[in-house]
Amino acid sequence: MDSCTIKAMDSELTIGIIGGGQLGRMLLQSAISFSVKCRVYDPHVNAPVQPFCQDITCGAFDDTDAIIKWGQTCDIITYEIEHISVEALKTLKSQGKRIVPDPDILAMIQDKGHQKEFFLSHSIPSAPFKNYQSPKHIGELKWPKVIKSRRFGYDGKGVWVVKDKSELSTIPDQPIIVEDTISIWKECAITVVRNGRGECELMPIVEVVYHDDHNMVDYLIAPADIGIAEQEAIRSMALQIAEKCQLIGILAIEWFITHDKKLLVNEMAPRPHNSGHHTIEALPSSQFDQLMRCLLNLSLGSTTMIRQSAMVNIIGSESESNIHDKVKPLYQMPNVHVHLYGKQWKPFRKMGHITICSDNKPALLETVKTIKEELEK
Amino acid sequence: MDSCTIKAMDSELTIGIIGGGQLGRMLLQSAISFSVKCRVYDPHVNAPVQPFCQDITCGAFDDTDAIIKWGQTCDIITYEIEHISVEALKTLKSQGKRIVPDPDILAMIQDKGHQKEFFLSHSIPSAPFKNYQSPKHIGELKWPKVIKSRRFGYDGKGVWVVKDKSELSTIPDQPIIVEDTISIWKECAITVVRNGRGECELMPIVEVVYHDDHNMVDYLIAPADIGIAEQEAIRSMALQIAEKCQLIGILAIEWFITHDKKLLVNEMAPRPHNSGHHTIEALPSSQFDQLMRCLLNLSLGSTTMIRQSAMVNIIGSESESNIHDKVKPLYQMPNVHVHLYGKQWKPFRKMGHITICSDNKPALLETVKTIKEELEK
Repeated sequence: MDSCTIKAMDSELTIGIIGGGQLGRMLLQSAISFSVKCRVYDPHVNAPVQPFCQDITCGAFDDTDAIIKWGQTCDIITYEIEHISVEALKTLKSQGKRIVPDPDILAMIQDKGHQKEFFLSHSIPSAPFKNYQSPKHIGELKWPKVIKSRRFGYDGKGVWVVKDKSELSTIPDQPIIVEDTISIWKECAITVVRNGRGECELMPIVEVVYHDDHNMVDYLIAPADIGIAEQEAIRSMALQIAEKCQLIGILAIEWFITHDKKLLVNEMAPRPHNSGHHTIEALPSSQFDQLMRCLLNLSLGSTTMIRQSAMVNIIGSESESNIHDKVKPLYQMPNVHVHLYGKQWKPFRKMGHITICSDNKPALLETVKTIKEELEK
Repeated sequence: MDSCTIKAMDSELTIGIIGGGQLGRMLLQSAISFSVKCRVYDPHVNAPVQPFCQDITCGAFDDTDAIIKWGQTCDIITYEIEHISVEALKTLKSQGKRIVPDPDILAMIQDKGHQKEFFLSHSIPSAPFKNYQSPKHIGELKWPKVIKSRRFGYDGKGVWVVKDKSELSTIPDQPIIVEDTISIWKECAITVVRNGRGECELMPIVEVVYHDDHNMVDYLIAPADIGIAEQEAIRSMALQIAEKCQLIGILAIEWFITHDKKLLVNEMAPRPHNSGHHTIEALPSSQFDQLMRCLLNLSLGSTTMIRQSAMVNIIGSESESNIHDKVKPLYQMPNVHVHLYGKQWKPFRKMGHITICSDNKPALLETVKTIKEELEK
C-alpha cells in the first residue's frame, strides 16, 4: 500500500486547548467534524482527553513559561478552564497568536471583584457587594452575607454563607467579596456566542436546579420556565455584556431571579459550560461547535432549539461504584443520551452527564426523576 | 497539582478499530461519549483518525500476523473497511476476542459470489448471476451484462457494464460474477443493527441518488420516497438477513427498485456506511452510536427519525482546490452540518460530507441544489 495516498491537509490549523477535562474532551468531539489538529495542555497525563488526542503536553496551569512555549506551537488557542496563567496568554497574544476568548476577558472573570466591577460599570444588576483584602478587614455589617473568594472558586467551592461575624474565622485569609444574601426564586443561564465578524447569537435560556444536599447542579431544563419579560431582559443584557467586552468565543452567564422577580447576574465563564451540555442534542449547533466556529472565524450556527431537553450530571457517589454498571439501564431509554468522561470514580466528581430530549415537558421531568432514581440506586 | 487526582477508569475497555479512515474517525467521535479507549490499526501514519487517537498501529490490512498481534491488545474488535485479513479475525475470535460483526459475515461479504449465494439460499431477490473463475471462461451470453470482480471492489470500482463479448478483454483476469442488467428506478439503502441479546432495529430507508458522470453517490435523502409496499418488503428482508447471518453490529444493505417495482438486493457492508452518515443529526442514535452500543453489548438506541435529512458527499474536484475555502460559505446556512475528514485533496476522493436537516422535503432538495452549486464553483 502507498502510505502517501492519505495525507493530512497541509492547510490544517492547529487548535491549542488549555485543559483536558470533560470540556476539552467534548470540544475534541466537535473538532473531529472540522479539518484541524488539536493540541492539549493539561497537568494530568491521564486527563479525560487522553485517549482521543494525539498531542498532549503535560504542565501546570500556572506555569507561564511552559504555556508560552506550548502555545507557540499552536495557531489558535482556547481554554476550557479559567484558572490558568493569563500572563502566558497575554504574551502569546502579543506574539501574534489568536486567543479565544481574549485574555482580558479571562483576567476580568478570574477575579470575582473585577467581574462585579464590570457589571457595575455597565449597569448590569448584580447582588450588592464590597471587596475586602481579607475576612479580617470586615467591620460591622448587617448579617447574613455571602462571602466569596475573589479567585479560584468553582462549583460552589470558595463560597460561604455567613450568619454572623463569629463565623468569619472559618474563612481562609484571602481577598474576598462580601455580597448581600438574596432571596432566589430561580437560577438560569444563557450562553452567548460572538465571532470575529461581530455576529452574535444567544442560546436558549436554561433553568438550573441545584441539589439540596451538595452545592452542585442537580438538573437543568431548557427552555427555562420564566416569564417573557425576564427572558427578554436576560437576552438583552447578555448581548450587552458580549458587546461591552468585545467577546470572541462563547460566554456562559448565570443569573438569579429573586422572589420579587428581580434579575441579578451571578457570574460568567468564558468557555463551554455545564449549563450548555444539552446543546449537543437539543440545538443544531452545540456550544462546542459554536466555539469551533469562533476559533476558525466561521459563521455561527443556528440556535433554534430542535427539542426541549433536560440535563442531569452523573456525580460520583459517596461509596465507590462502577459507573458502567450504573448507567447501563439508561441505554434502554429512548431519547436519553449518556456522556461519560472516562474519569475514575471519586465522591462528588462529575463523571459524565445525561441529556434527555422530548417535545413534552412533563415527560421530560418524569424521565429526569427516573434517571435520578436509577443513578442513586 | 496532584497528577493522580484524574485517572482513567480501570474498568475501561479497549476497542480495536481496523481502519482509520473517515468511518473510523466518526466512530471515534461517537466513542468519546462512552468510557472506552480506542486502538486503531491502519496502513497510513496520517490516516484521518490520526489527530484524534492516542494509539495507532501501522500495518497492512492483509498482514494477518500483524493484525493478530495488534488485536491481542484489544478487548473488542471492529472494522470500518472490508478488505482486511479475515484469517486474522478468525484467529483472534478463536483466542476469545469479541469481533463485531463476526468474521464469518465479513468473509461472506468480501466475496460477491458468496454474497449472491447467501441471498439465493435465503430467497432474498437479487439480479440473476453466475460465478466465473475469469472473464476468459465466459462463453455465449445474452448481452449486455454487468460484470463485477468477486473481491476488492468499492465505490463502483471493479464493476463493468459490458455491451458485448469483445469488451471482455478490458477486464482483468480474476474471479468475477456476471449479472443480468436491470432497469433501475431507484436505489435505496437500509441499515440494520442487532446486538448480542438479539435486539434488532432498522434505521429509516434512505434513497441514494448517483452522480451521472462518475459512479459515486451524488446525494442521499431520508426517508426514501417509495411506496409502503416496497418499504415493508425492504424492512422485512433486512430483518431476515440480520437474523439469518446472526448479525451482531451494524449492516448496511443496498437495494435496487426496478421500473416494474421489483426489489433486488444489491450488496451489503457490515460496517458504518456512507448511506448512514445523516443519522448523526437525523436520528437520536447515529449508526456510529449504534455500533458502539453493539460493541459494548448495550441496549440499542432509538431509530425514530427526528427530522428529514439529505446528505451530500464532498468529493475532491478534478482541479486542486482548498477544501476550507470551498466549504466556508456553507457554515452560513442554518441546519447544514459540515463534516470534514482531514484528508488532503485528490480528485474524486471523499473529503467530507454535508448533512442538511429540515421538516420540509422541497426545502431539503432546494438546499441540496444550492450546496452542490457552491461545491462545484
